[in-house]
Amino acid sequence: MKHRDSLPPPPLQPLLYERLVEDALREDLGRAGDLTTDAVVPEGSRVSATLASRKPGVLAGLDVAIFALRRLDPRAEVNLLKSDGESVAADSDLAELKVDARALLSAERTALNFLGHLSGIATETRRLVDAIRHTRARVVCTRKTTPGLRTLEKYAVRTGGGANHRYGLDDAILIKDNHIALAGTIQTAVDKARSSCGHLVKIEVEVDDLDQLREALALNVEVVLLDNMSLDQLSEAVRLTDGRALLEASGGIDQESAPAIAETGVDLLSVGWLTHSAPALDVGLDLSPL
Amino acid sequence: MKHRDSLPPPPLQPLLYERLVEDALREDLGRAGDLTTDAVVPEGSRVSATLASRKPGVLAGLDVAIFALRRLDPRAEVNLLKSDGESVAADSDLAELKVDARALLSAERTALNFLGHLSGIATETRRLVDAIRHTRARVVCTRKTTPGLRTLEKYAVRTGGGANHRYGLDDAILIKDNHIALAGTIQTAVDKARSSCGHLVKIEVEVDDLDQLREALALNVEVVLLDNMSLDQLSEAVRLTDGRALLEASGGIDQESAPAIAETGVDLLSVGWLTHSAPALDVGLDLSPL
Amino acid sequence: MKHRDSLPPPPLQPLLYERLVEDALREDLGRAGDLTTDAVVPEGSRVSATLASRKPGVLAGLDVAIFALRRLDPRAEVNLLKSDGESVAADSDLAELKVDARALLSAERTALNFLGHLSGIATETRRLVDAIRHTRARVVCTRKTTPGLRTLEKYAVRTGGGANHRYGLDDAILIKDNHIALAGTIQTAVDKARSSCGHLVKIEVEVDDLDQLREALALNVEVVLLDNMSLDQLSEAVRLTDGRALLEASGGIDQESAPAIAETGVDLLSVGWLTHSAPALDVGLDLSPL
Amino acid sequence: MKHRDSLPPPPLQPLLYERLVEDALREDLGRAGDLTTDAVVPEGSRVSATLASRKPGVLAGLDVAIFALRRLDPRAEVNLLKSDGESVAADSDLAELKVDARALLSAERTALNFLGHLSGIATETRRLVDAIRHTRARVVCTRKTTPGLRTLEKYAVRTGGGANHRYGLDDAILIKDNHIALAGTIQTAVDKARSSCGHLVKIEVEVDDLDQLREALALNVEVVLLDNMSLDQLSEAVRLTDGRALLEASGGIDQESAPAIAETGVDLLSVGWLTHSAPALDVGLDLSPL
Amino acid sequence: MKHRDSLPPPPLQPLLYERLVEDALREDLGRAGDLTTDAVVPEGSRVSATLASRKPGVLAGLDVAIFALRRLDPRAEVNLLKSDGESVAADSDLAELKVDARALLSAERTALNFLGHLSGIATETRRLVDAIRHTRARVVCTRKTTPGLRTLEKYAVRTGGGANHRYGLDDAILIKDNHIALAGTIQTAVDKARSSCGHLVKIEVEVDDLDQLREALALNVEVVLLDNMSLDQLSEAVRLTDGRALLEASGGIDQESAPAIAETGVDLLSVGWLTHSAPALDVGLDLSPL
Amino acid sequence: MKHRDSLPPPPLQPLLYERLVEDALREDLGRAGDLTTDAVVPEGSRVSATLASRKPGVLAGLDVAIFALRRLDPRAEVNLLKSDGESVAADSDLAELKVDARALLSAERTALNFLGHLSGIATETRRLVDAIRHTRARVVCTRKTTPGLRTLEKYAVRTGGGANHRYGLDDAILIKDNHIALAGTIQTAVDKARSSCGHLVKIEVEVDDLDQLREALALNVEVVLLDNMSLDQLSEAVRLTDGRALLEASGGIDQESAPAIAETGVDLLSVGWLTHSAPALDVGLDLSPL
Repeated sequence: MKHRDSLPPPPLQPLLYERLVEDALREDLGRAGDLTTDAVVPEGSRVSATLASRKPGVLAGLDVAIFALRRLDPRAEVNLLKSDGESVAADSDLAELKVDARALLSAERTALNFLGHLSGIATETRRLVDAIRHTRARVVCTRKTTPGLRTLEKYAVRTGGGANHRYGLDDAILIKDNHIALAGTIQTAVDKARSSCGHLVKIEVEVDDLDQLREALALNVEVVLLDNMSLDQLSEAVRLTDGRALLEASGGIDQESAPAIAETGVDLLSVGWLTHSAPALDVGLDLSPL
Repeated sequence: MKHRDSLPPPPLQPLLYERLVEDALREDLGRAGDLTTDAVVPEGSRVSATLASRKPGVLAGLDVAIFALRRLDPRAEVNLLKSDGESVAADSDLAELKVDARALLSAERTALNFLGHLSGIATETRRLVDAIRHTRARVVCTRKTTPGLRTLEKYAVRTGGGANHRYGLDDAILIKDNHIALAGTIQTAVDKARSSCGHLVKIEVEVDDLDQLREALALNVEVVLLDNMSLDQLSEAVRLTDGRALLEASGGIDQESAPAIAETGVDLLSVGWLTHSAPALDVGLDLSPL
Repeated sequence: MKHRDSLPPPPLQPLLYERLVEDALREDLGRAGDLTTDAVVPEGSRVSATLASRKPGVLAGLDVAIFALRRLDPRAEVNLLKSDGESVAADSDLAELKVDARALLSAERTALNFLGHLSGIATETRRLVDAIRHTRARVVCTRKTTPGLRTLEKYAVRTGGGANHRYGLDDAILIKDNHIALAGTIQTAVDKARSSCGHLVKIEVEVDDLDQLREALALNVEVVLLDNMSLDQLSEAVRLTDGRALLEASGGIDQESAPAIAETGVDLLSVGWLTHSAPALDVGLDLSPL
Repeated sequence: MKHRDSLPPPPLQPLLYERLVEDALREDLGRAGDLTTDAVVPEGSRVSATLASRKPGVLAGLDVAIFALRRLDPRAEVNLLKSDGESVAADSDLAELKVDARALLSAERTALNFLGHLSGIATETRRLVDAIRHTRARVVCTRKTTPGLRTLEKYAVRTGGGANHRYGLDDAILIKDNHIALAGTIQTAVDKARSSCGHLVKIEVEVDDLDQLREALALNVEVVLLDNMSLDQLSEAVRLTDGRALLEASGGIDQESAPAIAETGVDLLSVGWLTHSAPALDVGLDLSPL
Repeated sequence: MKHRDSLPPPPLQPLLYERLVEDALREDLGRAGDLTTDAVVPEGSRVSATLASRKPGVLAGLDVAIFALRRLDPRAEVNLLKSDGESVAADSDLAELKVDARALLSAERTALNFLGHLSGIATETRRLVDAIRHTRARVVCTRKTTPGLRTLEKYAVRTGGGANHRYGLDDAILIKDNHIALAGTIQTAVDKARSSCGHLVKIEVEVDDLDQLREALALNVEVVLLDNMSLDQLSEAVRLTDGRALLEASGGIDQESAPAIAETGVDLLSVGWLTHSAPALDVGLDLSPL
Repeated sequence: MKHRDSLPPPPLQPLLYERLVEDALREDLGRAGDLTTDAVVPEGSRVSATLASRKPGVLAGLDVAIFALRRLDPRAEVNLLKSDGESVAADSDLAELKVDARALLSAERTALNFLGHLSGIATETRRLVDAIRHTRARVVCTRKTTPGLRTLEKYAVRTGGGANHRYGLDDAILIKDNHIALAGTIQTAVDKARSSCGHLVKIEVEVDDLDQLREALALNVEVVLLDNMSLDQLSEAVRLTDGRALLEASGGIDQESAPAIAETGVDLLSVGWLTHSAPALDVGLDLSPL
């Protein structure tokens, strides 16, 4: 488990977000469109504008934001000054635009809502990644995402330097306490899962104590989630496991607690709040007539 | 401008969120469905479960969460113990459920993601509303919402005791600095807007200083947005306006700054971060076999 | 309440109708496409064609119709000779086209159905607007629109010189007789509405007689709808109100009755039949091989 | 070609309109829902209501309207007093309802918009059908329908006693003047169409004069459309054809001109305005608390 | 009933398949996109590639496959070497491409799935058409198609030289045994159908024996489906009918049985398995770096 | 790698196919609905019917087919006699139905198209699984599925006793020859993939010869795909690998070749034609009036 370097991840395939952005534009335009802009701004006027950060942070979603603008003005000229994954200072210029004034004002909020939300996630992820950079552990996100935005939020986590846990219920097995309770034992649950799933599906088991960990290890599962364990328990879990499975710590992980947890030697720190509670990065648009 | 009491708002028409919830369930189920639950949990087993808060907060979205469960088990029995708008302590029981085990585990994360996100917004809104309860000002949210969730997030703000600003670009006129710049003057912009919009559309103008405020008041606009003004400027604005228009303060409003701002006598405090940066409320499900 | 001049309204944001036009094309193409054209017209032949009116009227929807053609032939060359809002004589040329013959014949009916329907609404609106041009009253449309076409039909009304009432149930409060009956009194209804709605939402109350009007005025509502009142009642209502609220007359308004109603001094004449019963304008396409 | 009796057509399969009605409800509810009703009407109150005609006409779309109400209140009790295809006097009761008050008020306009629009078409169709009842001719509609509503409008025509022409470009061959011009001759066009289409597809040719009619008849086409011919030409066309093909008259057909045209002996009168210009039937809802 | 020559049918209107292809791309990309390609292939690398057949067959769906590639790389250069309807040998080059490497690898499987599936249908159709080329009979397909793909599969049958039966339940009348049983008699069923359907709708009746055939012929139906008859019965049916209706043989038709069935003189051989059981044609993509 | 026993897999979550079935019903009903049934079958008549196999096979998709019927008649009574995964003889009764006659006839083809298609896949899968039952190898399917139907086709493979390979490009890494060519070496490709993907994603590499296999094994990949290798090469690959990775044979696998390939000791036989070329199982509905 080596540190992912801080290069940005590959750009997201636009087909994965185009419809989402169009729906967001329609959500804002409503039935009547942009009443203010349509009434006040002369048709055909073009402006130059600068997309800028108001606070320091890590960028994610520039392509998504630009797509929103281009969707209303296909002839928009865009000069990107920064790219996803970059750390920027407050008041940094991110992109220069020459664009139809009405299109820009009508798409502005949608573009900023995406960029601010995703950059907020990338920013918090990066802070957490930096906090444990001296260890071998990776930051991973969870399925605690905003409904409809999982693809984009997972991308933002990668952009911040984190890695992704499951994208959904269907791309890996994660046997939790309730599954174990309903199956009877860890062994029954793992056996059933293993005989049911395909050969490219990994199995992870959530355990609450070291006895359960031993039971899971005996079943050769690939990953064990250590839920809400103390630092001592985590250290002992690492010792017991001795590399036979990846260990994922979960529960109460934030900037302050992360270093000590990572220093226990676990492989993964999974953090739900990155995707559901990271505050948005403050970004804005500054216009000047052409 | 009187305080909205803390009763919950009317329940949201389900047609406004049903498709959103179904799409969120599909987002989580992916192409193959819930691999773990389908493999591990015996078909047809029913469980009783309790929906609970882990932290104190104000609830919003109980109906939405319950709809997610019912969508996978139409025969689910639900006994609501709390309702939207209620303040709950940590570890409060919110609802008792008797439900198909597979349906519950497959819908759990989606249900909780909605409930946690919306309750987080309601919780922060309530705190802000409480902070200025001794004044006549109202808390209002903005269009800085999460793409796709505006209807639900605006509902959450109302549930917390706040009020709603525009739902989109099409239900009111808001003339901002860029509109003024492109129109030439405040007067041109207001004239154009007024001659263009319907008789049920209100006009609000954003101003940066007291001169602009005077200009806007002279034009008889219904609301003036005072952007990033000092407490002294706000007080002077209230004095100048003398009830001829509603005054909305904007910029840098949080729990600490809100009381002093509200005490200047403005009518509205508009707060973007309520919808884009409120941390989710921690909620969960506890199961026990029937 | 000043007359909106007869300049056309700002063009409609294409995102608001693109999907509608594509769905209409698919409705006409069905599963097998244009059997006749595909069989009979040689592939790749291009034609010049003229879009023309067959009857006099006011145009609305030219962009929408052209979008239908372009959707099937993105390389279509279009020379617009008229624009939305213009009054045209019978047999006027509206646009010259050079376009793929198959695309043109396959998109023709869809393009004409939109243009004819919307121009029909604009034409009737203009006639009504002209009939009351000597007064201060405005023509407004209602929510009695064709399902799915509200955005376009409201645009057509504006193009004809009318103004828009509510776009839906969510952008203004309109308290009708049934609401009053269920709430108990006008006062209860207005109080509940006012304490519930946002600061940018106006309140209108429908009244049947002058007593109700007095009650509504005492509550400072912004608009009063005078339903099916006689000319004498309307005049008395204007006198009573004395500018304290906008007055909207409703019921039985057509080209003949409109002038007298408008001359009572009411501000608004709301007319449902403009959007649900205006006959389509007869428009057509004339082809000649290139 | 025998008269279709005036029994109503089979009811429309609900799957063909359910999504349309849901979309229309969402169009009206917008993002925030029914502001007025939600604020003013107490939650859970039930009312009895009567669906009624305000003017005389022929009903079409009762099931569609009822579906709109049930979609917001699945427990609505409905007692239908009339059915589609029935001629009703002004102020006839059409259905008695016991239903949730909020659901009723929120769905009312959508339900009435469908019922009024479709009944308007059925009413005009019936008048035309009655005008030619002494002849053997049938009234048929065209593809000049309102975008998105073709299925419902064609149903309304059948309900009025008319018959349907093509539903789209893909269910029959109709060779028009432009097709002939681009193919070169009628014979080339018919040959190409015949060799291309399936064995269940009929071929109709539009002709402008009797020479073209002779040419079409020589090619054994199943139907000939006689476009804008005089009564004398139509009579001569009937004599010439002598039953070898169905003859469809088109152009300038209304209540006054129809009888003479039908009396020429043509089989079909096709009438575009039935679907694009029939005024809506005035229908309404009357409430009384339970 | 003359042989359709083996020229390819007119190209399919792209609007009829674009959304289908986009949905198929999304089905393959899932939530996270092409993990392998995004990780392994350098951004911006372009390749040349050859689309090729691995087995001999008849092509159908080249435009559909190319659309899939262009959807992910709008700047792709495509040089088509073959076209739909052509018979190709194994290992034939079909098209040369210069395209973004990531786009190509991400769209490859979707493009090939469409092309292989449709070409498989065209190939089997052609073999059947060739087997009866010495007769006057035509091969027609049925409604036994793959859900969602009817438009494309019917196109593939035409491309193979076959013709299309009904596209759905709504474009012709086909009275089957169950309809007859529920109506009472063939005559009742045909009478009801005839008085109900439009003038462009043909009527076909399915019969099991020669008595039923006589009954159907007496009713002047346009087509009779002879279900599972012996060769002797079919010959006798042809003799009895003597050109008064088209005759369609159905049941147990494959390459071996087809010639003898066609030689009885029937007009149509309808074959369900062409669309539900034709094996896909093996097609592939070969890359070489630019 | 142990044999999956022949129990059916867990039932598919209906949310994963409901929309697909509704769209298929709409595809068949078109714009006008079931012309024949609506005209011929008396409204409200109910029938009993039996769903039956015409040929022997393995069932898959019973729930999907029943959902199609219930969607048009929610009150249909269904008595399932068989279940998915069962092997049935020709002419076996699968389910008894009491259902509205119109609904049954209108939904019949859609229901049978799903059931026949999926059962065809399950049947061929079972035959292949049975052919290698004496070995330790598993049958797996590929991404060569019918566009839009991947979820259902993968389910059918599981129902037949096979297992699933990737569901899409996003749930596992599969490095193919083209990826290796573009990355430079296997090692570069694996390194890039490993540093990019999450901890629950497995890596599989496709190799053409034993040298490549050695290279892949040295990199500790979890699965190796042996493409088009001879039996001797496969045996040698098994020997070389010695359990360090799962081995998947691919290319030219059918009922005849499968046993020998499986006997080499490979773990997986991947078979594309199961999902793109399995002939449909012949299934039908027999009606009798109630």
